[in-house]
Amino acid sequence: MNRFVLPLAATLILAACAQTPSSTPPAVEQTAPSNIIFMIGDGMGSNYLTAYRYFLAEGKHQQIKPTIYDQLWTGMSSTWPDDQTLVTDSAASATALATGFKSFNGAISVDQQHVPIGTMMQQAKRLGKANGIVASSQINHATPAAFLAHNKSRRNMDAIADQYFDIRINGQLVPDVMFGGGLTHFIRDDRNLVSEFQAEGYQYADSWQQLKQLNQMPALALLAENGLPYVLNQEMESPLQIMTEKALELLAGHPHGFVLMVEGSQIDWCGHANDIACAMAEMHDFARAIQSAKAFVDANPDTLLIITADHETGGLALAADGIYEWRADLIYGVQFTVREITRRMMELEQAELADQWRHWTGLTLSDEQRMAVLAVHDDKTELRNLLNGFINQATRTGWTTTGHTAADVPVLAYGKGAEQFTGFMDNIDIAKRLMQFIQSSASQ
Amino acid sequence: MNRFVLPLAATLILAACAQTPSSTPPAVEQTAPSNIIFMIGDGMGSNYLTAYRYFLAEGKHQQIKPTIYDQLWTGMSSTWPDDQTLVTDSAASATALATGFKSFNGAISVDQQHVPIGTMMQQAKRLGKANGIVASSQINHATPAAFLAHNKSRRNMDAIADQYFDIRINGQLVPDVMFGGGLTHFIRDDRNLVSEFQAEGYQYADSWQQLKQLNQMPALALLAENGLPYVLNQEMESPLQIMTEKALELLAGHPHGFVLMVEGSQIDWCGHANDIACAMAEMHDFARAIQSAKAFVDANPDTLLIITADHETGGLALAADGIYEWRADLIYGVQFTVREITRRMMELEQAELADQWRHWTGLTLSDEQRMAVLAVHDDKTELRNLLNGFINQATRTGWTTTGHTAADVPVLAYGKGAEQFTGFMDNIDIAKRLMQFIQSSASQ
Repeated sequence: MNRFVLPLAATLILAACAQTPSSTPPAVEQTAPSNIIFMIGDGMGSNYLTAYRYFLAEGKHQQIKPTIYDQLWTGMSSTWPDDQTLVTDSAASATALATGFKSFNGAISVDQQHVPIGTMMQQAKRLGKANGIVASSQINHATPAAFLAHNKSRRNMDAIADQYFDIRINGQLVPDVMFGGGLTHFIRDDRNLVSEFQAEGYQYADSWQQLKQLNQMPALALLAENGLPYVLNQEMESPLQIMTEKALELLAGHPHGFVLMVEGSQIDWCGHANDIACAMAEMHDFARAIQSAKAFVDANPDTLLIITADHETGGLALAADGIYEWRADLIYGVQFTVREITRRMMELEQAELADQWRHWTGLTLSDEQRMAVLAVHDDKTELRNLLNGFINQATRTGWTTTGHTAADVPVLAYGKGAEQFTGFMDNIDIAKRLMQFIQSSASQ
Repeated sequence: MNRFVLPLAATLILAACAQTPSSTPPAVEQTAPSNIIFMIGDGMGSNYLTAYRYFLAEGKHQQIKPTIYDQLWTGMSSTWPDDQTLVTDSAASATALATGFKSFNGAISVDQQHVPIGTMMQQAKRLGKANGIVASSQINHATPAAFLAHNKSRRNMDAIADQYFDIRINGQLVPDVMFGGGLTHFIRDDRNLVSEFQAEGYQYADSWQQLKQLNQMPALALLAENGLPYVLNQEMESPLQIMTEKALELLAGHPHGFVLMVEGSQIDWCGHANDIACAMAEMHDFARAIQSAKAFVDANPDTLLIITADHETGGLALAADGIYEWRADLIYGVQFTVREITRRMMELEQAELADQWRHWTGLTLSDEQRMAVLAVHDDKTELRNLLNGFINQATRTGWTTTGHTAADVPVLAYGKGAEQFTGFMDNIDIAKRLMQFIQSSASQ
């Protein structure tokens, strides 16, 4: 049960001021947008945008042109959490982006004393707006969780899922649309949240077919037990785009407007795996979702589209080992994630390895590489690291870590109010400006 | 139960945390600026700006605030050269920034057929403006060279130096102010360019004392045989700032305005060396030079200040090896470049190594590290790599390469015409807009 205690407001205000905001949100001189589409590329540092541009051009410089990301790029944001590491996790950063306050790594919209911090979706609901979340991860994974729940640990995923149903604002449930993975947390032995949502009038889908048939709010779609499959590994070209379009269709026309959060969740997962082809496929899906969002803004100008990342993952660099080259052209040939290729390679006979490797990656195994593969053929982790190394070496892709980094991240904006998001800002500035818009749009 | 009224809290927070917004120049008519200050941080990818912010805050999150770089950050630029590598060198990128045309790696303002391409300084001189170059490298190193010379190879440094004197526009020499290193190319057995410049009326300085006494254009100052010493290794706090201020003093008030190119040359050299303390010292000097340039714009509003990088160097990342931390706080303790520390370590007795290492870096040598040092104590290259690794590990700094990468780079702008440099652009867009301004300002 949430606890929003007014005397604590003073403490929170003081805490907020002590955080040294980087800039005051400029006064809102014009009317605020009724709808906000807030898209978060998890792990999507600026090198992911650059890589995607050259990937789309297949590495051919005559074909390079600005991508949808480039067209909307307006600023950069810092991501540091409320501790001394400078390196945030997705929970602390999502907390910042959902509430305007920084917290500790692992925190889901609670402060250092574990007191809940009001989120922009709670604010939106209080003011009569509709809310939606779309993610390719579980819908109760850290990033969406920070918009809808409060917990001292992102790991308490069942408790977080419960709060999606249990938290009420003026008696109303907070999220009107929820699409993504995480079924395992919503239908449990101890509780069946799907039934509970349905009893509150939510349409429910657990397949892509059913998702397409949803025709009104409120609605819940749980399309995988945990995260959705990696885009690279499955047939559907743009699952995130499909979910985004359906969410917009349902949310459009809500009397007081809406706040929709769309997360390209698995850009980060690919970054953790240092898997460049995986990352480019997720970036492609996210780009297509952005295109759909942009088209919605064009058709519904009383809308702001704001896109950023929570942090950078992997220390991705477009060159390595002293070689002045990045082989974007080789990425298309890689047909599955390294994790999947590894699984498949382990099932092969020795004689098939080289041919199948070429078939799945477009790369040729040297004799030395083949010997190395044979040496670790039964060790999933060693084999995966080895194969990943082959792809990174061939493409000249550099990575410094399997974790996050303190890099600044891109900010992209389009539509009504987009000019508030230019130049350098801190992640809490983004949230504060959005919450100011939500407040203002309600008084219009 | 009291309810935390979110909209009220948001308003209170915004009011309580009100901060003076960063200053903007007063509104000016939309004519072109008479003066252009074009500053290039060689190798300065966006992670260098981020690193510098956290370095200045000594890694303490309570002390983080926007740096001068952050205040002026307006956009991002792609840097790809005219070949299939996607990774530019300084020559091809300087060519793009000086002429508006891309060329091959190594090219100094010539095209693929080695035909010279007119530079913005030649254009400026043709239109009656003054030109200046300031660099911490040799003044005939690739970046400044592309503004003043034409050669199929950046390596032909003597021929490039000759062209600084020999190229005439309407009978006039092109550069009016040249400050930096490279004396070895200007006083040679086969030619004494210093005498030739002096015969044309150029004041000449070959010491910092003499530089300070320069009081009119045209002027030449050559302050080192090759590049200037690394900022970290010498006493003077801001050599680039001193040169920049003197150049502006001489160029100010020229009847038709001026174009000044200031290069923070050695950010790149530190990046190649994967030496983070080295890089932060160069960034500090470049920041102070920017501050001087910004002050000039404030006093002379008919001026545009535009700052970018030619490319990113090193694949710098602010975290490594799966650890969620970047130890910016440890960088201050490193008192010299790794190259210099290595030189000094090689002169020590075994018994002194640990104490001196702690004295020069603030770091403690573990027994294992000490054994490793002893094993390579006589091998300069091996020892340097080892010591560099100790510092990078301690600070958690990641690097993917000793070369360049294909990353996009920051664009910063201030003053008259700054609004032309927002969002995403390509490096030739920067040059084209500047050359358009130069053309327009001449017709005003």
